Amino acid sequence: MTNNEKALKMHEEWNGKIETTAKAHVNSREDLAIAYTPGVAEPCKVIAQDPEAAYKYTMKANTVAVVSDGSAVLGLGNIGALAAMPVMEGKAVLFKEFGGVNAVPICLDTQDTEEIIKSVVNIAPAFGGINLEDISAPRCFEIETRLKELLNIPVFHDDQHGTAIVVLAGIINALKVTGKKKEDCRVVVNGAGSAGVAITKLLLTYGFPHITMCDINGIISKNSPNLNWMQQQMTEVTNLEERTGTLADALKGADIFVGVSAPNIVSKEMVASMNKDAILFAMANPVPEIMPDLAKEAGAKVVGTGRSDFPNQVNNVVAFPGIFKGALEGRATQITEEMKLAAANAIAGLVPEEELNENNILPEAFDPRVADTVSKAIKDLI
Amino acid sequence: MTNNEKALKMHEEWNGKIETTAKAHVNSREDLAIAYTPGVAEPCKVIAQDPEAAYKYTMKANTVAVVSDGSAVLGLGNIGALAAMPVMEGKAVLFKEFGGVNAVPICLDTQDTEEIIKSVVNIAPAFGGINLEDISAPRCFEIETRLKELLNIPVFHDDQHGTAIVVLAGIINALKVTGKKKEDCRVVVNGAGSAGVAITKLLLTYGFPHITMCDINGIISKNSPNLNWMQQQMTEVTNLEERTGTLADALKGADIFVGVSAPNIVSKEMVASMNKDAILFAMANPVPEIMPDLAKEAGAKVVGTGRSDFPNQVNNVVAFPGIFKGALEGRATQITEEMKLAAANAIAGLVPEEELNENNILPEAFDPRVADTVSKAIKDLI
Repeated sequence: MTNNEKALKMHEEWNGKIETTAKAHVNSREDLAIAYTPGVAEPCKVIAQDPEAAYKYTMKANTVAVVSDGSAVLGLGNIGALAAMPVMEGKAVLFKEFGGVNAVPICLDTQDTEEIIKSVVNIAPAFGGINLEDISAPRCFEIETRLKELLNIPVFHDDQHGTAIVVLAGIINALKVTGKKKEDCRVVVNGAGSAGVAITKLLLTYGFPHITMCDINGIISKNSPNLNWMQQQMTEVTNLEERTGTLADALKGADIFVGVSAPNIVSKEMVASMNKDAILFAMANPVPEIMPDLAKEAGAKVVGTGRSDFPNQVNNVVAFPGIFKGALEGRATQITEEMKLAAANAIAGLVPEEELNENNILPEAFDPRVADTVSKAIKDLI
Repeated sequence: MTNNEKALKMHEEWNGKIETTAKAHVNSREDLAIAYTPGVAEPCKVIAQDPEAAYKYTMKANTVAVVSDGSAVLGLGNIGALAAMPVMEGKAVLFKEFGGVNAVPICLDTQDTEEIIKSVVNIAPAFGGINLEDISAPRCFEIETRLKELLNIPVFHDDQHGTAIVVLAGIINALKVTGKKKEDCRVVVNGAGSAGVAITKLLLTYGFPHITMCDINGIISKNSPNLNWMQQQMTEVTNLEERTGTLADALKGADIFVGVSAPNIVSKEMVASMNKDAILFAMANPVPEIMPDLAKEAGAKVVGTGRSDFPNQVNNVVAFPGIFKGALEGRATQITEEMKLAAANAIAGLVPEEELNENNILPEAFDPRVADTVSKAIKDLI
């Protein structure tokens, strides 16, 4: 049986990868009178007087909604809400298994920005946080921004920020391995969708002064045609040297490449044209922008991918469960930029100096310390 | 500690009466590759081609949303979405504990009919059914009707139909105990909100020809002022004798009283004015329209209430878990009138003839046969 066949068979056996389970058991009339009527009226009355009490008496305290419209699912594209369900259920499993956080998949049968915003605002009372997932750019930027304004619970688009946090964690350690300084590094981010934009923003916040974004048409500059509003905004803070040309042009003399784009689009020659001890995060999945062995042959020092069968896997699972665990436990109303930096530093810090090397810059997904370490870093800021 | 204090304390201990639990466990890279990327793409692709496959590969097969806007919660009234959460969580517990059905509380932060409808349509992909709860009349009628038209999964307002089904089950058995025939009975339903309307409709469908509805102003007739559109509609099919007057007037010579109204509004004199061997369902909670002992003293033969400390408790929990269990297992797209009648008959049938008497017309809430019996009755119709 191939892995794909096994995945289908197991999904049929699970018939839903998560379920709801009662914490309050109802085996007698007395139980019923406490967990349901008439006893249940008591916490209702308290919450009606003091909305904060919802965190004391309901699942809001420890439950997130995993919300998608199915418009940008994995490598599958716009497959719609229903077909996105297995991914959102999978995400909900990871929330619980890695972070102890309850998560409910909510797949929205609309791709209208305003309707998505309204629906999420409407369902928010039951949830302590909103994890947005697999929503296409540039809609995802507006949806997240508006929801953050409208809601007083954390809203976090994991495709953007989860990825950005783990990439930054990897880069923090890659700088140590290579002895490079962020102030001196030229960074090229290839791919200007949700992840590319968020990575660029977080690297800017962290203090990388020189970042060039590229997309399928090459270097993105103020004069590039067909940019969406977010990409246009990014031209105000990136490519300050006003370069033009192709990705190959951008990479000449660059120190760091971050790819969230397409398979095999970086050649050995392009890597060879980069600065000494180049750092590459080639995260196209399953086939990276360049295979790690080729990049190494061409002179790269540190290479990360999205894959678990190569060293330095960039896997969001080291970020989002701990981030929401911390945000919920600390009752954060937002995931701030400061928290994202703290999470990246916490993840990077999980690889001790003496174990740090070019093939070991990120903790394992299954490292049992990860969620609590990240969670603590978040809570320390609240 | 009083029961109310105990209820508060337990709700704090539970801190959410339900949780989400992983059925797919993720303890290794191999697990991750099957339950999440890349394996999860397989069921996604199949569902994108064939939406029906969602029932095979996702939690949609066995999960309902418990949806409220918090506008008519228990005896508490319009306390809003957040304060309604403990009730919806309680309902979700009952779904799982009694019917084995996964249930997610969705408390909507809007009381606008159109927005509620849109939000429920939007979240529907993840769910195999929608249980509406504690939404005020007459909005609940429009919301349910419209959602039934818009969705291809069962939509069921339990305050209406759950109550109606259990009352009908009780009446079916009360007829046997008293030897009355439905064709000859005059029925008075007091209370013209969601439950009163639904009970009246189901009793009409079952074949009671003579039903009079009353509200706080007395008998509802075509000339009553201030009726909402649904109450107006009901005047076309009830009170065909065109009676006028008070509840006391309505009860003179009546055989059956069904109260979903207010405490202590039926006197012994009013019961004494009813036909011989009167049947009363006095379901105002916690204090019924008349206490059972008083009704009996005044000549009533069968008295049911909403309370567990008197005989003949009308408790929705004998209906909704089995109804959704059957509807989901049989993949019903609607809960039809036929299914409601079948559920009532199945519930009534759980009290065997030889055990049937005026103090035993309904099965116990904790009778372990209930959910499967009701579920089977539903499935037999699909």
